[in-house]
Amino acid sequence: LRKAGIIGAGAWGTALAIVLADNGYDVMLWDRSSSVVSEINENRRASRLLGIHLPKTVSATCVPEEAIEGSSIVISAIPSTVVSNIASVFGPLIEKDALLVSATKGLDPETLRRPSQVWIDAVSSLKERTVVLSGPNFAVEISQRLPAATVIAGAEIARKRAQEAFWTPYLRAYTNWDIIGVELGGAFKNIIALACGMAEGAKLGFNGQAAIISRGITEIARLGMVLGAEPFTFAGLSGLGDLVLTSTGHLSRNRQAGIAVGRGEPISQFLDRTGYTVEGLSTVKSAVSLAEKHGVTMPITEIVYKILYQGISVRQGLYETMSREKRPEHDQ
Amino acid sequence: LRKAGIIGAGAWGTALAIVLADNGYDVMLWDRSSSVVSEINENRRASRLLGIHLPKTVSATCVPEEAIEGSSIVISAIPSTVVSNIASVFGPLIEKDALLVSATKGLDPETLRRPSQVWIDAVSSLKERTVVLSGPNFAVEISQRLPAATVIAGAEIARKRAQEAFWTPYLRAYTNWDIIGVELGGAFKNIIALACGMAEGAKLGFNGQAAIISRGITEIARLGMVLGAEPFTFAGLSGLGDLVLTSTGHLSRNRQAGIAVGRGEPISQFLDRTGYTVEGLSTVKSAVSLAEKHGVTMPITEIVYKILYQGISVRQGLYETMSREKRPEHDQ
Repeated sequence: LRKAGIIGAGAWGTALAIVLADNGYDVMLWDRSSSVVSEINENRRASRLLGIHLPKTVSATCVPEEAIEGSSIVISAIPSTVVSNIASVFGPLIEKDALLVSATKGLDPETLRRPSQVWIDAVSSLKERTVVLSGPNFAVEISQRLPAATVIAGAEIARKRAQEAFWTPYLRAYTNWDIIGVELGGAFKNIIALACGMAEGAKLGFNGQAAIISRGITEIARLGMVLGAEPFTFAGLSGLGDLVLTSTGHLSRNRQAGIAVGRGEPISQFLDRTGYTVEGLSTVKSAVSLAEKHGVTMPITEIVYKILYQGISVRQGLYETMSREKRPEHDQ
Repeated sequence: LRKAGIIGAGAWGTALAIVLADNGYDVMLWDRSSSVVSEINENRRASRLLGIHLPKTVSATCVPEEAIEGSSIVISAIPSTVVSNIASVFGPLIEKDALLVSATKGLDPETLRRPSQVWIDAVSSLKERTVVLSGPNFAVEISQRLPAATVIAGAEIARKRAQEAFWTPYLRAYTNWDIIGVELGGAFKNIIALACGMAEGAKLGFNGQAAIISRGITEIARLGMVLGAEPFTFAGLSGLGDLVLTSTGHLSRNRQAGIAVGRGEPISQFLDRTGYTVEGLSTVKSAVSLAEKHGVTMPITEIVYKILYQGISVRQGLYETMSREKRPEHDQ
């Protein structure tokens, strides 16, 4: 039996464990929480996935070596804030020919590096064996085997190996060579999801949200190009597709945070009340820094930043957005 | 006072009348229904826009000459099925230097021409003065002056004139040179809205709908390129933006039709029950013809066609879609 190790037994890591188990892998989930680990091993249920039943071939451990050693695939499914620390501990344990799959959406808040970069910087031999998995995928629906599509980006041999590993009757995994675009799309889309939520919370209508999504993709692609991505990637599954999901589905934390702010609740109060990790809150800071550094205009990102961190109101932000100069849709 | 004539006093024509009236135009709506005309003139209310109150400078008539003569802007806001007949009657009445704004989303069902082409074929001198207006715009929200963005595409002088005419504090009108892409996006997006509705009606989850939207934009762009459009246009307001709106807002007729079919209701019964015009039902036939003629692969469009016109079930269609071969996200 082929073995897979998954770092992080949150909703997403556990859903991906089910996919690999369905494809014949013996899966070991690592989590630092011993209560999460024992619940998986003893009750065979994932509390973070509405209590769904886990296949027999999925187990959990608190010991890094038990998850990583002997695994031909390692998945990193952890928040962007901890990738740097985790990579330095787990990176050296990864087998010489194993594939590393980064499933984190966000940027390292300290260095603004993409998560896959952080791993490769920790262990340089991972360069040709690291892929990014990103797409419009609610974990709960994947664990229920509802139909979905996702993207796997990386070097040619690695991305094809990963496509084989994740391909199931309910999950179509498309390959893409543009690792930068796929990874940035998954990170930046949370900013636009926050903006859509704000518009909804302030009752600005559907037209406004559709405009935010379209114009948001345009400005994300503009920054992405400067950072080495292919602009068309942002119109694909990992950019637009994921943005549509976070902006319209009822489960996205970024959107929920935006809605609360749009209704007038301070973001700190929302975080206290829900206990959520909202990736977009740090991504918007990173994007503003990158946009300034590279001289890229990002009106929606800037307004979201001002609303979150400089105390302007959603109405004021809307007014600033709508009163910008007349423009063509795309620069020629 | 500048005068504008609008052909068709449906929801969209009436909403655009309000925009132009807000910008200082004296607007005359033409409609063939004398009851619609007298309601506008006598009650100053638009029954198709939730009874919203109309500005004093909006009137209506059943006489083509009264709407068109003396107008510096003429808007065509009629279903795609009647553009050919209307253009031959109204075209010769349009003033020599007037702008023609085509706001119809769909293709001529007989000849598969875009609506703007039909107008130009009827009156060749319109070529440099015809623009297309298309974007993620629910008419009711526009009439309520909720914030929105739209696209105006055509020759440079014409599109800039039109941008001035439609620009208001609540409507950002972006210009685009790619008239083919903007017009095709507005037409083809209804096919994908039908597909999303079907997935929702059959309870396939949010991941599936996000996948349909992303993969749908990809296949629409593929056909559009063959027909002379810029692929990136389909990722903009008139393509993706409008698709997001029709697929997620609660007002789209195409989505509602898809939901009914997804729940198992025959499409003929849905049309009888609601009395709706569902543009996507003829657009899907046009797209299948164009795709065959030009040898373009359009899996989602083909499945929607088979479900609507060849009696396969939504489940069977889903199975056919999911069991296609492994692929890269974009052809290189």
